[in-house]
Amino acid sequence: MATVPLLSYADASPEARAVFDDIKRVRGVDDVNNFWKALAHSPELLQSVWSQAQQVMKPGALDAMTKELIYIAVSAANGCEYCVHSHTAAARAKGMTDAQHSELLAVIGMASQTNALVNSLQVPVDEAFKK
Amino acid sequence: MATVPLLSYADASPEARAVFDDIKRVRGVDDVNNFWKALAHSPELLQSVWSQAQQVMKPGALDAMTKELIYIAVSAANGCEYCVHSHTAAARAKGMTDAQHSELLAVIGMASQTNALVNSLQVPVDEAFKK
Amino acid sequence: MATVPLLSYADASPEARAVFDDIKRVRGVDDVNNFWKALAHSPELLQSVWSQAQQVMKPGALDAMTKELIYIAVSAANGCEYCVHSHTAAARAKGMTDAQHSELLAVIGMASQTNALVNSLQVPVDEAFKK
Amino acid sequence: MATVPLLSYADASPEARAVFDDIKRVRGVDDVNNFWKALAHSPELLQSVWSQAQQVMKPGALDAMTKELIYIAVSAANGCEYCVHSHTAAARAKGMTDAQHSELLAVIGMASQTNALVNSLQVPVDEAFKK
Amino acid sequence: MATVPLLSYADASPEARAVFDDIKRVRGVDDVNNFWKALAHSPELLQSVWSQAQQVMKPGALDAMTKELIYIAVSAANGCEYCVHSHTAAARAKGMTDAQHSELLAVIGMASQTNALVNSLQVPVDEAFKK
Amino acid sequence: MATVPLLSYADASPEARAVFDDIKRVRGVDDVNNFWKALAHSPELLQSVWSQAQQVMKPGALDAMTKELIYIAVSAANGCEYCVHSHTAAARAKGMTDAQHSELLAVIGMASQTNALVNSLQVPVDEAFKK
Repeated sequence: MATVPLLSYADASPEARAVFDDIKRVRGVDDVNNFWKALAHSPELLQSVWSQAQQVMKPGALDAMTKELIYIAVSAANGCEYCVHSHTAAARAKGMTDAQHSELLAVIGMASQTNALVNSLQVPVDEAFKK
Repeated sequence: MATVPLLSYADASPEARAVFDDIKRVRGVDDVNNFWKALAHSPELLQSVWSQAQQVMKPGALDAMTKELIYIAVSAANGCEYCVHSHTAAARAKGMTDAQHSELLAVIGMASQTNALVNSLQVPVDEAFKK
Repeated sequence: MATVPLLSYADASPEARAVFDDIKRVRGVDDVNNFWKALAHSPELLQSVWSQAQQVMKPGALDAMTKELIYIAVSAANGCEYCVHSHTAAARAKGMTDAQHSELLAVIGMASQTNALVNSLQVPVDEAFKK
Repeated sequence: MATVPLLSYADASPEARAVFDDIKRVRGVDDVNNFWKALAHSPELLQSVWSQAQQVMKPGALDAMTKELIYIAVSAANGCEYCVHSHTAAARAKGMTDAQHSELLAVIGMASQTNALVNSLQVPVDEAFKK
Repeated sequence: MATVPLLSYADASPEARAVFDDIKRVRGVDDVNNFWKALAHSPELLQSVWSQAQQVMKPGALDAMTKELIYIAVSAANGCEYCVHSHTAAARAKGMTDAQHSELLAVIGMASQTNALVNSLQVPVDEAFKK
Repeated sequence: MATVPLLSYADASPEARAVFDDIKRVRGVDDVNNFWKALAHSPELLQSVWSQAQQVMKPGALDAMTKELIYIAVSAANGCEYCVHSHTAAARAKGMTDAQHSELLAVIGMASQTNALVNSLQVPVDEAFKK
């Protein structure tokens, strides 16, 4: 359970409801996810995060699925269970195949291993990277 | 400086030199990076990491540049300076544009923000993600 | 479940019981939280953590509620579910309002975002901060 | 050094310069910090982070100095050297005393210790926290 | 629940079954743990992790139990619930006593505390450590 | 550089000097490390950390070198450069061989890899670990 009650549409403030309505419209869903219901206690934060999410995650120089893969990678490194679940679902909805998921996992695992080795060895940055 | 002396080719064991030779050949470079020189104290670990790196980072269901973006994301989340530098350089060498770099940063920042919000709120995983 | 059995008062050693008694007396509660029951396998560690907690968390140059906000921030960054729950409850008991909780979340989210951006960009420390 | 060149005012785009001008005006400084010069490669991200920073860090239900203490706590937990430096300087500028800094450190240290103990013990959340 | 279905022996591919058989044979168990069932979607990754695990965790210059203690320490620092559980069980199976477990916890707690203090203070590395 | 000036013996308060004297006596050194000089701004915290360090790191059910290995592992996972340096030096002083260091690194790397895989897959804890 959350550290705040999840706010349903009925319980949310008019400002929060307006954001819920926008999420439902943009995503074509009947209800918003728990994340938004928890954020709804702070309509200002809810609005800010939703605006950012639309801006940041829209296709641009990187396609929408690649952005989801990056999101999963950060969320796994930060140990965020909810985020890993929601963005793995989002990546699948945007076309991530099982083979792509497997390769994503392999890269996340390898990066974590070498990050830890570098932190254990305190390897100095090569001059070549400092240009 | 590192917690071990960086081993140059001259100082490395025959087993480590063989890996150095392979890295230089595969990557078409004159010398290996500091990471490999630090790992060379353990030729077995050096060989294992190098084999994995080739296997994991080769193009497959995900292209080589996308894999580097994921590597950067994990390394930033784990706070590994060396890894962020070396894989940002690698991503650029594999074609990452400035616009792609900017969008990568935006996604890493947004994911880190929402990871922290979720961890602060302890949002329960939606039933919809459990199917 | 925990990696050790939670020790009830009945099962705890005399040394652990003495700490349990002190916690119940100081906090005016009928039973101690799970954290203390898990630590009770090591009465020395239990005593040390309890002594520190009283020393560190008492009002001083910072008031008790501000200390709880800082505790929540660290616990969220470290992804500790139990700690976020117990210190959010403690902060509320010490007067944290919903508006303060919302602002706490916004700062935790923003700090996490910029931490990740800085780690991705490896921004050098300004000379002005080095005085 | 950073993974991107730091952009001076002279080198920045008109959009980035407009944000630089706003930062200088609001903060009453002659030049912006390295963080903003690194972000300036992405004027959109620069603008977004600056807007958020003003919104989130302004005094509200929590005062400006308390927000800086929370920022330091998150940054220390995430191991962000730059952020710890810049927000320690900001906290001092907003009135943090040496005694407050010492107590902040003690709470950060204690929280990190108990976070790690809880993660090692996997203590289940008490029923009392679930109401 | 996992972000992928756990694959039982019946559902796994021939390549994954071969690794399952090897794990069961080497460990003398009737079934493999959930970790391997989740990894089985990628037989290549399953094989790679299993090979590494045998190579890395076998007794050498460090005995098998000490390696498990280190594994627990890393897993607690990274907040990996599953890993803390499985490697605490493994350490016990390899002879870890309750007294050793208590001392392990005390060191993990203390290290986490001083890590956070150092990150808050940004203590420069002593010259003596740079030799 | 640190976020506080490092306090030399000459500049430290009498309370801090008493701890410095004790550290020098117990360790048989002419001067204390930077960590203690940074902590000396808070004599109470300095005393508390030094007392704990002696208590926690003394040989017991685990020998002194094994405790240093665990300390390095936590410090690497938390990305604490200073701590990795100081405890690698301490481990060597307590007899850590190059072969032991190499195996320590291999375990830290492997644990970090599987922690990340588990966090990506959100593997549920096996029933067998819940007894």
